[in-house]
Parts: sequence; C-alpha cells; structure tokens
Amino acid sequence: MTRPVKHYKMTTWVYLQMAIYAILDVRELDQIFISYVWIYMSWQNQHIMWKSEDFCGLDKVVVPLATLWTPDLTIEEMTEKDKAPPSPYLTILENGEVEYRNDQVLVSTCKMQVYKFPFDIQRCTLSFKSAVYSDDEIKFEAILDESKITEWSYDAMRTQSEWLFINLTVNHKTVKSFDYNQSLIVYTISMRRRSALYIVNFLLPVLFFLCLDLASFLISDSGGEKLSFKVTVLLAVTVMQLLLNEILPSSSDRIPLIAIYCIGSFSLMMLSLLETILVMYLISKDSQDNEPLEDQSLSE
Amino acid sequence: MTRPVKHYKMTTWVYLQMAIYAILDVRELDQIFISYVWIYMSWQNQHIMWKSEDFCGLDKVVVPLATLWTPDLTIEEMTEKDKAPPSPYLTILENGEVEYRNDQVLVSTCKMQVYKFPFDIQRCTLSFKSAVYSDDEIKFEAILDESKITEWSYDAMRTQSEWLFINLTVNHKTVKSFDYNQSLIVYTISMRRRSALYIVNFLLPVLFFLCLDLASFLISDSGGEKLSFKVTVLLAVTVMQLLLNEILPSSSDRIPLIAIYCIGSFSLMMLSLLETILVMYLISKDSQDNEPLEDQSLSE
Amino acid sequence: MTRPVKHYKMTTWVYLQMAIYAILDVRELDQIFISYVWIYMSWQNQHIMWKSEDFCGLDKVVVPLATLWTPDLTIEEMTEKDKAPPSPYLTILENGEVEYRNDQVLVSTCKMQVYKFPFDIQRCTLSFKSAVYSDDEIKFEAILDESKITEWSYDAMRTQSEWLFINLTVNHKTVKSFDYNQSLIVYTISMRRRSALYIVNFLLPVLFFLCLDLASFLISDSGGEKLSFKVTVLLAVTVMQLLLNEILPSSSDRIPLIAIYCIGSFSLMMLSLLETILVMYLISKDSQDNEPLEDQSLSE
Amino acid sequence: MTRPVKHYKMTTWVYLQMAIYAILDVRELDQIFISYVWIYMSWQNQHIMWKSEDFCGLDKVVVPLATLWTPDLTIEEMTEKDKAPPSPYLTILENGEVEYRNDQVLVSTCKMQVYKFPFDIQRCTLSFKSAVYSDDEIKFEAILDESKITEWSYDAMRTQSEWLFINLTVNHKTVKSFDYNQSLIVYTISMRRRSALYIVNFLLPVLFFLCLDLASFLISDSGGEKLSFKVTVLLAVTVMQLLLNEILPSSSDRIPLIAIYCIGSFSLMMLSLLETILVMYLISKDSQDNEPLEDQSLSE
Amino acid sequence: MTRPVKHYKMTTWVYLQMAIYAILDVRELDQIFISYVWIYMSWQNQHIMWKSEDFCGLDKVVVPLATLWTPDLTIEEMTEKDKAPPSPYLTILENGEVEYRNDQVLVSTCKMQVYKFPFDIQRCTLSFKSAVYSDDEIKFEAILDESKITEWSYDAMRTQSEWLFINLTVNHKTVKSFDYNQSLIVYTISMRRRSALYIVNFLLPVLFFLCLDLASFLISDSGGEKLSFKVTVLLAVTVMQLLLNEILPSSSDRIPLIAIYCIGSFSLMMLSLLETILVMYLISKDSQDNEPLEDQSLSE
Repeated sequence: MTRPVKHYKMTTWVYLQMAIYAILDVRELDQIFISYVWIYMSWQNQHIMWKSEDFCGLDKVVVPLATLWTPDLTIEEMTEKDKAPPSPYLTILENGEVEYRNDQVLVSTCKMQVYKFPFDIQRCTLSFKSAVYSDDEIKFEAILDESKITEWSYDAMRTQSEWLFINLTVNHKTVKSFDYNQSLIVYTISMRRRSALYIVNFLLPVLFFLCLDLASFLISDSGGEKLSFKVTVLLAVTVMQLLLNEILPSSSDRIPLIAIYCIGSFSLMMLSLLETILVMYLISKDSQDNEPLEDQSLSE
Repeated sequence: MTRPVKHYKMTTWVYLQMAIYAILDVRELDQIFISYVWIYMSWQNQHIMWKSEDFCGLDKVVVPLATLWTPDLTIEEMTEKDKAPPSPYLTILENGEVEYRNDQVLVSTCKMQVYKFPFDIQRCTLSFKSAVYSDDEIKFEAILDESKITEWSYDAMRTQSEWLFINLTVNHKTVKSFDYNQSLIVYTISMRRRSALYIVNFLLPVLFFLCLDLASFLISDSGGEKLSFKVTVLLAVTVMQLLLNEILPSSSDRIPLIAIYCIGSFSLMMLSLLETILVMYLISKDSQDNEPLEDQSLSE
Repeated sequence: MTRPVKHYKMTTWVYLQMAIYAILDVRELDQIFISYVWIYMSWQNQHIMWKSEDFCGLDKVVVPLATLWTPDLTIEEMTEKDKAPPSPYLTILENGEVEYRNDQVLVSTCKMQVYKFPFDIQRCTLSFKSAVYSDDEIKFEAILDESKITEWSYDAMRTQSEWLFINLTVNHKTVKSFDYNQSLIVYTISMRRRSALYIVNFLLPVLFFLCLDLASFLISDSGGEKLSFKVTVLLAVTVMQLLLNEILPSSSDRIPLIAIYCIGSFSLMMLSLLETILVMYLISKDSQDNEPLEDQSLSE
Repeated sequence: MTRPVKHYKMTTWVYLQMAIYAILDVRELDQIFISYVWIYMSWQNQHIMWKSEDFCGLDKVVVPLATLWTPDLTIEEMTEKDKAPPSPYLTILENGEVEYRNDQVLVSTCKMQVYKFPFDIQRCTLSFKSAVYSDDEIKFEAILDESKITEWSYDAMRTQSEWLFINLTVNHKTVKSFDYNQSLIVYTISMRRRSALYIVNFLLPVLFFLCLDLASFLISDSGGEKLSFKVTVLLAVTVMQLLLNEILPSSSDRIPLIAIYCIGSFSLMMLSLLETILVMYLISKDSQDNEPLEDQSLSE
Repeated sequence: MTRPVKHYKMTTWVYLQMAIYAILDVRELDQIFISYVWIYMSWQNQHIMWKSEDFCGLDKVVVPLATLWTPDLTIEEMTEKDKAPPSPYLTILENGEVEYRNDQVLVSTCKMQVYKFPFDIQRCTLSFKSAVYSDDEIKFEAILDESKITEWSYDAMRTQSEWLFINLTVNHKTVKSFDYNQSLIVYTISMRRRSALYIVNFLLPVLFFLCLDLASFLISDSGGEKLSFKVTVLLAVTVMQLLLNEILPSSSDRIPLIAIYCIGSFSLMMLSLLETILVMYLISKDSQDNEPLEDQSLSE
C-alpha cells in the first residue's frame, strides 16, 4: 500500500488521459458544472514484472482495484463523490505497467460569469493532482495532445444539452503547496450556450412589446384607450420579467446585459406612459383654460 | 477472483438478457433517461462441476454474490449507481453454469431531440460491455430475439407514464478500445410521448386565442374596445408562453416546432395589432383632414 | 450462509406480516408510491435448538443480523434501497424459530390512472418474493387475515397526508419464473385522495368564472365593456389552467375529466365571446345599412 | 456483541437524554419533520470494571464504537438514516458505565393539521425504544426533567427558522408489542409558526382587494368602468389564489380556514359582480321601457 | 486506536488550519450554509519516530488513513456528512508529526436574519471541537492568524456566487460540556449579498409602478380610464409580490424591510385608488344635486 518503487527517491510517472462524454448540467446559480468524463491512468509498478513466455503467453492480468496501490488522484474542483459505479478492476501488463480506466460523473465548482447571458461562453477547469505526494514522488503527464482529445470528445459526446462543447485544452503546472511542489494537469473545457430558444421565448417578445409601445404613439391622446393599452403592455413585460428572475442568478458584480435590456425596455415604456399622462393633462388643462375664454367671449 | 477458465486463452461467453419493467423518467432538460430493468446473466465457471447423483439429487446451489467471480458488466451510458437493492445471491447449476438475475434502476444519458415536441419519439440506447476485458476474454451474447423481449416487456410494464413503450431492439457490436477489441450488446428502447394533455392544455388554448384575435377584425375600429381586446388576448398568450419556457429545454440547434408555432401566433397577433393602430391613426387623420375642409366649405 | 435445513429438499416456510404506518408520497408524475411499512418475518432455522431449562430459562437470544442466514426477500415493485435505518438484530427462540422485524420506507412503482382526478382511488401493490429460491425451497405465508391488518394499519397510521388509507388486502400467488415456480405474497393498498382543497381552489373558481361569463349576456352589446369583461374572465381562466398543468401528469391515454372540464369551460367562453363579436358586427352593419336608407328617405 | 450483563435476567437500564439544536424543516405536504438533535445515552457494561488507582489514575477510556455492544435504539417515527456524521467513539468509565453522545439529523413523520394555517401550532413526537429487546431486558429512563431540557434547548437553538420552538415534554410509556412489553420514551416538541410574513404578503392583500371591491359600489352603474374595475380586482385575487395552492397541502378533512377566507372573499366579489351586472341590465331595460312610452307620448 | 501519547495525562495538541474555497449555497429558508473548505490538521504521534539518516534520507512516509489514530474532529454546526471524496492518506514526518489535509463540503446550520434583505450581511460560524475528548486530552490551536487566512481565502475563492466573501475570523474558546471542559476553535465567515440584480429586477419595478400611480393623479377624474389604469398598476404590483413570496422565508420576528416596502407601496396605491373612487362618487353626487336645482331654477 506504499508507492511501488524500488527506491523512495524514484519518481512515479502517472500518464493521464481524460475525454468528455457529456456535459450533464451547468448550474449558474450554484456555480456548479457536472460532466461525465472518461479517465485513463497508467503507471509503472516496479515490484511487478514477468515474462509472458514463462506463463504460456499471458501478457496481462486483471486484478481487483483494492489489491494494488493506486495514485491518490484528486480533482481540486470536485465537490461531490463520483455517482457513477466505479470500475472494479486494474489491468497489469507484463512489464509492470498498471492501467486503470474509469467513467466518472464529476460535480465540480466553476467560476461562471453571466454577464453576456444568453450568449455566454463558459470555461471550466478540472485540475488533476495528487492529494499528498510531492512532485518528487508523483509526476503527472497527459498522453494525447489537445487537438486529439477535442476531436475524440466531439465523437464521444452522448448528449444534446443546452451547452455546445467547443474544445478541451490541457496544461501542465507545478504549484507550491506549503513546503513542497506538486505536479498538476489542468483540463479546460470551453462550451457555448445554445441561445436560440432564449431569443425566441424571451428577447423577441420583450422587443415586440417595446415596438407595440412605440406604435401606441399613433393612438390619439383624447380617448382613454391609449392609457389602458400602454399599461397592459407594461403588465405583460412585468410577467416576462418574472421569467428572468427564475433564469438569472444574482451572482455578478456587473448587472447582466439581458437585465439591462429588460429594465431598459421597462423604463422606456414607463417614460412614454408618464409622457402620455402629462400630455393628456396639458390638453385637458388647455381646453379648460379655453372654455372660460369662450364663455367670456360669449358673455361679452 | 480471476476469470474462471482452465486456460487463460479460453473465452468466457456471457449470455445476457434484458427486459424493461418501467420507464421511470425521461428528462429532456438533463438528457437523462431513467428505466427500471431486469437483467439476467449466465456464464460458465469452469472450476465448478458436480454430479447431482453424488449429492442426493442436489442440482443447484445458491451462494452469496461476493464468493465467486462475476463479469464486470458496465453500461456505457450509466451515470449513477443503481439505486435499487441488488440481488444478493448467485445460483450455480451442477454443470458449472452460474446465473445472476437483478432488478436495476438505470440512470443513463440519452441523446434526445425535442424538435417535434410534443409529438416526438425518443430512442435511448443501453450498451452493455465489459469494463476491462477484451473480446478474446469475454464475449457477450443476447439470448432472446427482439420480438420476444419486446412482447415480454409489454407484459411486464408496471407503470403508466408519460411515455408509451414501443419496442426494444438488440444489436451485437465489436468496438475497438485502444489496443484491443471489445464485445458490446446494444439495446435500443423506442418510446412515444403521450401528447393528449399537451394538445388540450397548451396547443388548443393558443389556437383559440389566435382565432379570437382573427375574429376581432369584425370589431369596428372606431371605439377603443378593439385595441383593449387585442392587447388582453396578447397578454393571455404571454402567460401561456411562460408555461412553454418551463417545459422546453434550450437544447436543440433547430428551434422546436412548438416554439415556432407559439412565436408565430404571437407575431401574427402583434402584426394585426400594429395594423389596427395604423388604421385607427389613418382614420383619425383622415377625419381631421376632412374637418378643416368642411369648415372651409362652411365658411365659403 | 446456506438455507438452514437438514435436507436440501425440505421447504423453508417464511411467515410474513406487513402493516402500513404512513403513506409518505404518491407521485402521479413519476408513478411512484412511497410508503412506510412494518415488516415481520419468521422462519425455522433447523440447525438451532436448545432447551431453555438447560440454560437457566433463557428462551430467546438476540444476535446481529449478519451472523445468520436470512431469506432474500425482495419486493418486485421496489426501485430504491430502503432509506430508513435497518433493524440490526435477529431474535432466535429456543425452538429454532428466527424472527426479524424491520421498519422500511418503500419506494415502489405503481400503475396510477389520473382519469378521475381529483376524485380518484389508487391501488398499489407490493409483491414479496424470494429473489432466487424456487417455491420448493422457500414458501411465503401471510400470518394475519385482511380485516385484521387493515384495522391494525388504521390504528398505526402516523400521518395526515393527501391520501386516505382505505384498506389492505393480501393474496397468495405462484408465478412461473423461467424453469421454476416462485411463491409470492401480494399486498394491495387502496387509498382515496382527499379532494376538498382541489374543489375549493380549482373547480369552484373555474365554475364561478363560467357563471360570470354566462351572466355577461345580460350586459348590453352596444358598449365596449362587454367585450373587455369577457376577455378578462378568459384571461383569469388561462391563469387557472397554468395551475392544472403543474398538478396533472400527461400520462394517460384518456384525457382526464378535469382537463375536459377546464378546456370545456374555456371553449364555451370562447364561443360566447365569438358570438358577442359577431352580434356586435351585425348590429353595427345593420345600423350602417339603415343610415343610407334614412339618408335616402331624407333625400326623397 | 450480546447484552453485557452477568445474568440474562438482569435488566440493562439505559439513561437517555435528548435536546433539540434546530428545527431544520417542517414539510406539511409530506408530513415530515426534520430536526437536529443531540442524544446522550449511558448504560452499565457489567463485564468492564477497573480501579483507577491500579492504572495510575486513568478513570476513563475512549474506544471506537464498533468494539462494544450498544443498545439498538430506534426512533419509531424516523424514516431516513441519519445524514450527519456519527460520533465514532464511546467513553468507558472505571465503574463500567459506558457513555455515547451523538448529534443526529432526524427525518421523522409527524401528524400535522393545517386547519389554522398560518396560525397553527404543531406537536411532533419522537419515540425512543429498543428494536428487539423487551422491557425485561432494556429499560429506558430520561435523565433531566422537562423544564430543564426545554431551557437547555432554548439556549442551544442554532437557527432562526419559520418555526418558533415552544417546549419539549417527555413521557415514559410501556407498550405491548406482540408477546412482550417494551419500554418507550416519547419526546414531544411543540412549535409555533411565525405568521408575520404570511399576514403581510397574503392575508392583507386579499383583504385590500375585498375592500376595493366593496368601495366599487360607490362607482356609478352607468359607465362601463365599474365592470372592468371589478373583474380586474377578481383577476388579482385569482393570482393570489395561485400562491395559496403552492403553500397549502390538500391533506386535511376539514378545509383550512385560510382557504375558506380566500374562497369566501372570492365568492363575495363574484356575487357583487353578478349583482352589478343585474342592476345594469335592469337599468338599461327600464330606460328601454321608458323610451317607447316617451315616443308614445310624443306621438299622441 | 487509542490516543498516541506515552502517558495518558499528556495532552495532544492538534494544530488546525481552515481556508474557504467557495461559498456554495446560502439557503435562508432552511437556514443552511454550504461551504467548500480546506482543512489541515497536524498532531504529534509519540509512538512514531525515526532518524532519516538510518533510512537513506527518507524523512516522510505516506500511509492510508485507517492505519493510525486521528483526532475525532467534529464541527458542531454540521448536519450532513461530507459529500466530497475524502483524502485517503496521512503523511508522517520523521519526528512523529502526522499531517492530514482534506477538502470538505460542509453543510452547516447558520442563524440568518433576512431583515435587511437584499442588503444583508450574514455571519456563519464553524466550531471545530473533539467529539468525546476533554481539553486535558486534546487541545486545538489555529496556526495562521486572521488576516493571513482571509487573504489566503480571497485568492483561493473558486466561485462567483450570490455572496461576496468579506473575511474569516478565528476564536479560541473553552466550553463546559457536562463534567469536563472542551477546547473549541470557532471560525466565523462574513459575507455580503450581491444585491444589484434584486434592485434592478424587484425594487426598481415596484418603485416605477408607485411613480406611475402617483402620476395618475394628473388624469382627469371624469372618464373611466383613471380607475382602469390604477387597478391595472395594482395588478402588476400583485404579480411582483408573488416573486417576493418565493424569495423571502417567513423566518424572522420582525417583518423584513423589503416586505414593508412592498406592502407599503401596495397600501399607498390602494388608498389613492379608494380616494379616486370617493372623489368620483362625490363629483357625480354633486352634479346630481345640481341638476335638480337647475331644473328647479328652470321651472321657476
């Protein structure tokens, strides 16, 4: 159960590969990103080695996970245990290489900005590192290059969610953790929101109501119908705003553009309504001022 | 705990059978398909064999699950551990055949398109394979043919959900996974949404409001009631659209037909409203133009 | 860990008793029934027997659950593991009888029809059987008769939920499972929905609005207020219909009566609104036709 | 792992103490009460005893939980396993007394009535008993008296929830369970709902709308505005009623007072609306009847 | 598995360090605070010591968690088990110092007041203590000072949530627990709600509607449009109030300022509406009183 090296100063190189199967959920409210990934790890167990010729050609053996040491791989952003059933077996090759592959559901935190909602692009990182070993003991190395894993992930993508996977990049980093350094591999997943439905169901109706409100200037000020029309349109925009409150989290320092669009339309409609009331008031006052004059002229 | 064969080059044939008990949930938003299935596996354990005559006719033995090797069956799409209590026992027959049957709740990803909602048919796949063994070591074979398991599932169906089970098909595939091939059995579950309630509660009311809006052309343009009528109908459609936002996920590239239907009705009503305002404006302008003329004619 | 009989051909009789403590949840949308039940099992362990006289009168012993064989009782409809803490101990009597009692939260599927909602009665079944043993090996037998357990459950009922427990019936069945028969005990729980609040909060308001709409025929057709009145009432019914969409699952082939009631009221109000528009149009056309006549008669 | 007594006929006295830290949730819909409690148990282990003098003054030892027998304490109402991390250690004193203290999150059923909502007081019970032992074997005894634990709980209360903790009472009971008696300790938690926000956000607005409706009698019947005013107020009350449906469960036999209040206001407003329509109809009919008379008198 | 000291009277000093990675959720309704923290503990294991020179310079060893005694650290407020995967290894230094570092998701209760919502600042505490050991046996000591951990946490903050982390303070306390004292470290996390979106989406619209209502005094009392205008504005505020009910918990003794703001606006609009009705009534009565007089004067 200790690191399988012949001398404690030898470094164990862990070759890592990750591909993404599905973007299961992106919750801006909780700043949580849930992905379904495939992880492949291989490393050298220096205590194991055999010649396949001596064992009638047997060049690999499958053993249960608990029987051998495995790297204590942790993902820094991960906030929940893997919900998918873990793979129960390790594969050992004749040269002592041990392979482990696992499908995991990762629930990870991700710093998301909703400023440009619904036209936003989010970038979430997954940082793989060892929990306790320094980089003298365990070093991580990504196998495939970025273009290959992006392509691989495109093909493997199993869902049709709100988010469109763009690409996957990989970086090697070394971070200082107290008195020793640690080797890190950071995968960055970029994805773009499919905004079509938000445009059709939210942006367009608000725009329509704004047009309606502008068109209402053509209605004559004299009758009461202009006022009633404008306030009903305002009520409809209020109902639309209820929707916005459900979708948008109150998480950013800057007010999201869509909220500005919404409150802007609202304010414009408010101002035009106030202007209408004022005009109507002036007209009625004007006619009242004229009436006494007429009365006066009549009496003269 | 290793594969129970007499020589490592012998292949273990695993006979698999799956039937579906219930479609528990189909979440288009999360692209998740939850089913309750019954799985039957049987394989040969070459290290076990006895003659029932020697044991007073005992031809099968029930042993706890952990005492013997079991194939590391994984379902590629599965994203959560089985929530149902697992079956704790294996049955061993006198010829070394081992049987395992289990009722499982499968939470799996499924690529769903909501383009034709609520008249859509979804097809979800469940791919059974070994986690680490190549197809030289483990080969899967489905027992029953498609018509039989579809019929079987029809009878066993235990719920009355939103989704109507259509059929279940089964395919054998061999996929290349890195340096070896793996044997796969892919079950495809087809199901149709029961759309009656969506028609009655959503499509009909929107259609009704559209009719109302068309009928409003019969109302005379002179009074203010036409405008007030039309804008209230528009408000009602906005309330209906709130509902659509709750039901429909923003996941497709193409805008779903129902959203087009909804925004189309909305636009038609908008245009007719704008037209009404324009007509009213022209009428009032026309009468204003006429009045001076009348005044002129009177003064002449 | 094998069945505790002296000869493998002897049948183990398992005496079963179930009572229901609470109906925790009935979800028509997911077709899930959650109940809190009390289960009592007792069976003969033929390898255990002692005389209480030899052990200073000790006639029963309590041992941890894991130390002895227990029947692999499964409930066919169950889709989630028991969430309640399991009872950790078995009681062994001096004659070898073993007793196990446990409080369980059962999450089970249940075929529910919402056709008569909110006046519906649902019947959910819980089928107890052995997972792998045939009826030659394990036979189940219910202890108490139906009236007693119904009465028992009435007294034990611990919650005041939306569902009123009616009765509990028990049936013995033998089903063929592949090449052997299995003994089954099916408990059927009947319950009735408390519909008072649905009547007060949904059915009455819709009825009221329908009455209002009918009453509006008394309003004179000449003014614009009739139209405005009727369309506002229609809007109110649309808001009520939003509620229906939240309550009712789209699961049945037949459209539920309450949806028909709702869409029926809606259609009636629509038709009366269309009729009003038509009448207003005819009246205005009639007066337009009369005016030229009057003009004509004047010019004559 | 058996009851630690020198002779099986000796009773193990378990001294129990419970205090409540927080009322986490009270769900009337599911009839579930979630509390965060602190439980203290102590009992005599007759097989352990030492003299502290012989061990250099060591008078207590801390051992892991699994190493010694613990009473199989169950809470009858509990429907979910404890979610809080359990305390891993027991403390043993030199006289053989064993102490166990644990912080637990209890999810329990509770019979709740919402008749007086939002001015209701709920009483939830927690019944501690042994799962299998009779009262000859295990007897429970509460340590502190009611006033002390109520006071203790007041001080320890860690949250500011919707529910105001009133008091905690404790009762000893002996219940007959089949062929033996069991010792029970029943804690009853009383709590009162903080109703301020419900008054401000629900009761007041409805009352306001009712006042508005009454005030509308001052509006003259001649114009169309009275009708339009009254039906808009009715619409606003319908929107408020949507809210009630979300808050209130349909669980009681008697219709809750708040629902009666709401539907009563609604009915009153309906009736006044119908009366208005009738009066308007009679006035218009009256004037129609008068007109011919006038015409008649003119023609005479 | 007992405390690793050479004599039982020696105190084990546990050096503790906590930093906060993310504020995952703050639920005022349930009074729950979910944070993602990093915990570092180190203590002296007096039974372990070696000279690195004797083991070719090996100065630290990594061992699985279960092999050595660890302090039974509990967090008083914690109500759910850690959901994040625990770190599986301990690091032992040559001088016997044992280090444990772990990333944990803490679900803890927190007394929250919503009086000043949405401009509130919340302070949540996390109290670390031993479950059973007295302060003679285990003493806790925080390593870093407050300014350093606040700064550390600022840098480490991984999410952009509704809550802005302000600072982290640490206190040492000794509390009396029954017959012994316990050492406690209390971390207090202060955070401020980002209120921008609440202002834009809730406070501003209500203010706008209030302005509209005030502006409506300019509309002449004679026509029916003033009444219709004011009641529609009132309806819009009612819709906004629905939103408030979803956001705000009914947990405080004092009514939150925002509810007073909302109901205040509502009342003002009610009063102005009642005043309008009264004025209209008086005007109409006045004109009715004048008419007979005119008739009288005419007849004179």
